Amino acid sequence: MGMIGGGEGSLIGPVHRMAARLDGMIDLVSGAFSSNPVVSGITGTGEGLESSRIYGSWQEMIDRESRLPDDIRPHFIAIVTPNHLHYGPAKMALEAGFHVLCDKPLCMSVAEAIDLHETVERTGKLFCLTHNYTGYPMVRRAREMVLGGDLGEIRKITVEYFQGWLSSPVETTGNKQASWRADPEKAGIAGAMADIGTHAFNLAEYVSGLEVTALSADLHTLVPGRKLDDDGNVFLEFRKGISGTLLASQIAIGEENNLSIRVYGNKGSITWRQMEPNSLVVMWPDKPFQIYRTGTTFRDAGVAAPMHTRLPAGHPEGFIEAFANLYRNFALNIVAAAEGKSNDIMVDYPGIYEGVRGMKFLEAVVASGLHGSARTAV
Amino acid sequence: MGMIGGGEGSLIGPVHRMAARLDGMIDLVSGAFSSNPVVSGITGTGEGLESSRIYGSWQEMIDRESRLPDDIRPHFIAIVTPNHLHYGPAKMALEAGFHVLCDKPLCMSVAEAIDLHETVERTGKLFCLTHNYTGYPMVRRAREMVLGGDLGEIRKITVEYFQGWLSSPVETTGNKQASWRADPEKAGIAGAMADIGTHAFNLAEYVSGLEVTALSADLHTLVPGRKLDDDGNVFLEFRKGISGTLLASQIAIGEENNLSIRVYGNKGSITWRQMEPNSLVVMWPDKPFQIYRTGTTFRDAGVAAPMHTRLPAGHPEGFIEAFANLYRNFALNIVAAAEGKSNDIMVDYPGIYEGVRGMKFLEAVVASGLHGSARTAV
Amino acid sequence: MGMIGGGEGSLIGPVHRMAARLDGMIDLVSGAFSSNPVVSGITGTGEGLESSRIYGSWQEMIDRESRLPDDIRPHFIAIVTPNHLHYGPAKMALEAGFHVLCDKPLCMSVAEAIDLHETVERTGKLFCLTHNYTGYPMVRRAREMVLGGDLGEIRKITVEYFQGWLSSPVETTGNKQASWRADPEKAGIAGAMADIGTHAFNLAEYVSGLEVTALSADLHTLVPGRKLDDDGNVFLEFRKGISGTLLASQIAIGEENNLSIRVYGNKGSITWRQMEPNSLVVMWPDKPFQIYRTGTTFRDAGVAAPMHTRLPAGHPEGFIEAFANLYRNFALNIVAAAEGKSNDIMVDYPGIYEGVRGMKFLEAVVASGLHGSARTAV
Amino acid sequence: MGMIGGGEGSLIGPVHRMAARLDGMIDLVSGAFSSNPVVSGITGTGEGLESSRIYGSWQEMIDRESRLPDDIRPHFIAIVTPNHLHYGPAKMALEAGFHVLCDKPLCMSVAEAIDLHETVERTGKLFCLTHNYTGYPMVRRAREMVLGGDLGEIRKITVEYFQGWLSSPVETTGNKQASWRADPEKAGIAGAMADIGTHAFNLAEYVSGLEVTALSADLHTLVPGRKLDDDGNVFLEFRKGISGTLLASQIAIGEENNLSIRVYGNKGSITWRQMEPNSLVVMWPDKPFQIYRTGTTFRDAGVAAPMHTRLPAGHPEGFIEAFANLYRNFALNIVAAAEGKSNDIMVDYPGIYEGVRGMKFLEAVVASGLHGSARTAV
Repeated sequence: MGMIGGGEGSLIGPVHRMAARLDGMIDLVSGAFSSNPVVSGITGTGEGLESSRIYGSWQEMIDRESRLPDDIRPHFIAIVTPNHLHYGPAKMALEAGFHVLCDKPLCMSVAEAIDLHETVERTGKLFCLTHNYTGYPMVRRAREMVLGGDLGEIRKITVEYFQGWLSSPVETTGNKQASWRADPEKAGIAGAMADIGTHAFNLAEYVSGLEVTALSADLHTLVPGRKLDDDGNVFLEFRKGISGTLLASQIAIGEENNLSIRVYGNKGSITWRQMEPNSLVVMWPDKPFQIYRTGTTFRDAGVAAPMHTRLPAGHPEGFIEAFANLYRNFALNIVAAAEGKSNDIMVDYPGIYEGVRGMKFLEAVVASGLHGSARTAV
Repeated sequence: MGMIGGGEGSLIGPVHRMAARLDGMIDLVSGAFSSNPVVSGITGTGEGLESSRIYGSWQEMIDRESRLPDDIRPHFIAIVTPNHLHYGPAKMALEAGFHVLCDKPLCMSVAEAIDLHETVERTGKLFCLTHNYTGYPMVRRAREMVLGGDLGEIRKITVEYFQGWLSSPVETTGNKQASWRADPEKAGIAGAMADIGTHAFNLAEYVSGLEVTALSADLHTLVPGRKLDDDGNVFLEFRKGISGTLLASQIAIGEENNLSIRVYGNKGSITWRQMEPNSLVVMWPDKPFQIYRTGTTFRDAGVAAPMHTRLPAGHPEGFIEAFANLYRNFALNIVAAAEGKSNDIMVDYPGIYEGVRGMKFLEAVVASGLHGSARTAV
Repeated sequence: MGMIGGGEGSLIGPVHRMAARLDGMIDLVSGAFSSNPVVSGITGTGEGLESSRIYGSWQEMIDRESRLPDDIRPHFIAIVTPNHLHYGPAKMALEAGFHVLCDKPLCMSVAEAIDLHETVERTGKLFCLTHNYTGYPMVRRAREMVLGGDLGEIRKITVEYFQGWLSSPVETTGNKQASWRADPEKAGIAGAMADIGTHAFNLAEYVSGLEVTALSADLHTLVPGRKLDDDGNVFLEFRKGISGTLLASQIAIGEENNLSIRVYGNKGSITWRQMEPNSLVVMWPDKPFQIYRTGTTFRDAGVAAPMHTRLPAGHPEGFIEAFANLYRNFALNIVAAAEGKSNDIMVDYPGIYEGVRGMKFLEAVVASGLHGSARTAV
Repeated sequence: MGMIGGGEGSLIGPVHRMAARLDGMIDLVSGAFSSNPVVSGITGTGEGLESSRIYGSWQEMIDRESRLPDDIRPHFIAIVTPNHLHYGPAKMALEAGFHVLCDKPLCMSVAEAIDLHETVERTGKLFCLTHNYTGYPMVRRAREMVLGGDLGEIRKITVEYFQGWLSSPVETTGNKQASWRADPEKAGIAGAMADIGTHAFNLAEYVSGLEVTALSADLHTLVPGRKLDDDGNVFLEFRKGISGTLLASQIAIGEENNLSIRVYGNKGSITWRQMEPNSLVVMWPDKPFQIYRTGTTFRDAGVAAPMHTRLPAGHPEGFIEAFANLYRNFALNIVAAAEGKSNDIMVDYPGIYEGVRGMKFLEAVVASGLHGSARTAV
């Protein structure tokens, strides 16, 4: 793969590289790691790249790499830049014939998202959006149970994503992660809702298999001087009249990366928490609670989780492993595509559709937030 | 004490009696346990009451008991009937010169609540509303920390109360608890919001010391045929622009009695969960999380929790003990009042003010729910 | 009931009284609460006893109370004194025709224990030893599952009881609880092993239904100046060659009252922890873990736990409730005995047999500890 | 690196390779993955090795690789074979001038271990033994606190390692992992004690910085037909008279990989559990419990944990990350050694000393177990 973004000081760049490396299927061969050529050079050299494959701009990289022979050019480009630098590189890379893997949220607007969607369809290239929490084995198991009807008819979906790292104005103190996320020019129309709300939204739609059709949002900016939301609560309406809530905050002191989902059906319910990711609690009205665990292998463990698990039960698999599952799945589908096969639904990954959904969610949330929590269609 | 309600088949009646008995300060001396005199007789006899002190109607009981000599008549009347039978007995008992302890919610309307409030003030009698969760030692500690400024300025309050026992239409199958709660004639204008939402609301105001000024509610009735809400989500606005959420459901399968509160300040935050009531998690941005525990006695444990604790740490105190703390506090204040002393703020209990608050919450929630989640003043 | 011991400053006396009161079946009618008549008088008056029923010595109490008419004299005597004052009162009370409830350990030696056993058999009186942890609903469920064969053949039993309150020499600072426990004249031949080790031992035998036949003990006294063990580890051999361990400590700082039991069979296993007493974790090799909970009512919940539960699931029942279950069971059996019925096995309680077992355990543990952990028959 | 062992069907081979790859510092360049050349070829090809660097025997590999030019030959050899194939390859690789990383336990006897120790000293090569649990950030923090005196004088150390995967005779059903572990020819003198007991032993010595001087062991073989221990309990004596226990079992159904350590001092205590590896619970007698978490960055978080952490708090790091920390540390020390620097104590890793300790532990445990749990010097 080639990588755009992720230079020195990036948080998510190294995560992408570790995730790509973990299973030994993907090699990093080129990169434009920063708009600063010096930084790009340092990062690329540190990664052991040939100097000829390290670029000072993404445009140059895509242009040059696209003209390399098939056995040398990367199969896909990973885009790990701040939000405002997703659309351009993604579009150019797709049109240059590359498959694309891109960090979330997809871009800056629904319009951009629809344009990328059209580009993906036109070019026939594969597109992966790293809603990485869908890579956890127990999230896969949860989806399998919900879609398989184990919980009966779904009645209620509760997602929550609390963090505390933006509880003070760290964007003014040189924190690189915070700086661009707090800047509307780079982050887009939303803050916490873009950064983590979209993850929670994606998780709700992924696990339930249901689309959100409307919402009412109550957004807050609690740290003085901040320009974008850092806290918000959303009523969700899914298809079939199913209701839900999405709570997200980045000012909740002490909360680390507390993403959770609960799905309640008329036969049973499930709870999953990202900070204890290897357990899935399943509750029934008429028998003892059950706990499914990553790595168990008995027949009733389903088939989705084992396909996303590397170790026996009790050997904790974490954030990087889940992230790596998306890279692995994307790579497997690229291989399949190269062999003329269709996507393998067992090794699915979030894609351009999920990217469009996320942008529609963001525009609806912001519009509702600005209009007194008015009910807004998604 | 004398008791109105709580006859055979009642859930909460025996709880009140166990709570009253636990500390050996309160004797049950009379009761009108049911509108069915036979049932009342059976319950009263089972409780070892003299037959002359067992009544077939609450009116008769209040009338007769109020004419007993001071050393025989009960100091207070406990009202543990369904909601529609709170106002009448409470008013009559107050006016007959009794202190009153009453189950929640206070009554059927804000108008009734205000009338009771006026009656309490006029008669000078003490009034306890059994928002029993305020009796837990760690809730007391949470309030002490919040009011003492340990968390800094409060920014966000999240309360949640999930149950699953009404996930099927048990009110149609002879379940006495469910039957009256599902009947607007007996429960009032709300279902889940009255039964458990008011507890969550009270807990939010109690721990934070802040009043809710407005709300937006999204109410649902998910079990077909049910007349009142069994699930709902509320955006809360507290004084000073502090925001919050209240989620309540009685159709969340597997959830037992899952009440929790989280309060986030700009210096720290706390989390408390009713189902693990003896721990209070305190989180800080710049030092390790802390866990306060019921029964610890070091100096930093505060003074509120120890006053509501019977046992050394690690000897779990539960629901009945917390409930008993309100009875104990009420009794201590009755004794103090008899001695001409003012209420002891260290052994406080929810009272008529909290009852009025709860009714205002309910009317606002229902109004907002009926009007598309419109923002509604409380 | 009448009570011996439990005067002002006692920890366990008030617990016994709360436990006795909780269900409204038992009245305290007389007491010799202290060898100091003033203290006994204060305690008895505080409990609302008639002054004629408050005694300055247990001998006087048993003598006088035994001569009261049947409808006035207590049905049983509760003995809640330090260990050295169990044997005498228990023997005299039994011989005076009272049923007896006694705190653990039973007495000071196996010889005393056997003598009490013989006395119980000779007098035909009922005897309850308050190994109170057997009163928890989930302990009852655990025993039911083990004895019912749900776990298959038992292979391994692990019990552990860690506390930290004796991590410094508090017996020298006026702590009444610590003082007598650290004094061989009052506590007997063992410290931590007598105080908490016997509870763990009893729990292992109760849940498994298996007797320990031999043991090897490694005892320690870690606080300088202390005369008895405050920490120890024991290898256990049960019948049928089943092995186990018992770890107990009172110097484990931070451990509150951390008693747990794990039983491993060849089909499944269970874990129960006193500090989260309302859950029983059941693990299987070939299906998801299960969690049984106090208060659930579905058919598979068994029959033993519901008989020891007062509240719906999620309303935590704690230490006092479990303790009260023994009082309740003992009272029910006294009533049954008065009606000429045999003991009800569903409402069982630890008795004189368990008392003898505990003393045999203690003598074996101490002997082994003194002889280099030599294997010692129990 | 080059690898010996870890061919198709190996569990630990892929783990080593993922751990080596994670940080992008280490390339696999050669391997003798199996004594079956076909299997070795398949594995090596799957790993993308050049065919000339894939070998059918470890002797051939060491011989051939040692004669490659410096810039081509691997810096170290990783040995991931069953126990009986550690000593030979390790000795030959050291003498051929390679640094060596080896799975645990070190070898088959103390004699072999001492010989390897001598070989390491003689050759001056670095040696890493993958007691991988020492790679967890919170284990590093625990050690830092214990050695730094935060807990005061250590009094008691409790380690436990429970698994259930050998609860039935899976070694007879074609399970490759179980087969060699159950075979004394390949596993050595011990079963569970060698496989997991040595990990627990190492963890106890690593975290405490204290050597075990003597022990008494109670070993069991619970699955009929099995030749080695599958369950055992050990009393431990550390230097300075500090006591402890080590419990290990592989027949504890439902236990996944339940390794834990508790260290009790006279000022405080710590608890760490491998299955929730990102929390370290610290308990004090006189202030609230504290929880340290992987990834927190405040000043009081110490320096050891942050050096072994890749992600912000709340992004779970698991088994592979901890394992990778040893590879990373070993690689950093190899680089330092190549530059003539001494080992960096901040990035330490278990080495040949720990290997000798483990073998001494095993021989002592087995000797004690065979002689009625006789106290045996380590």
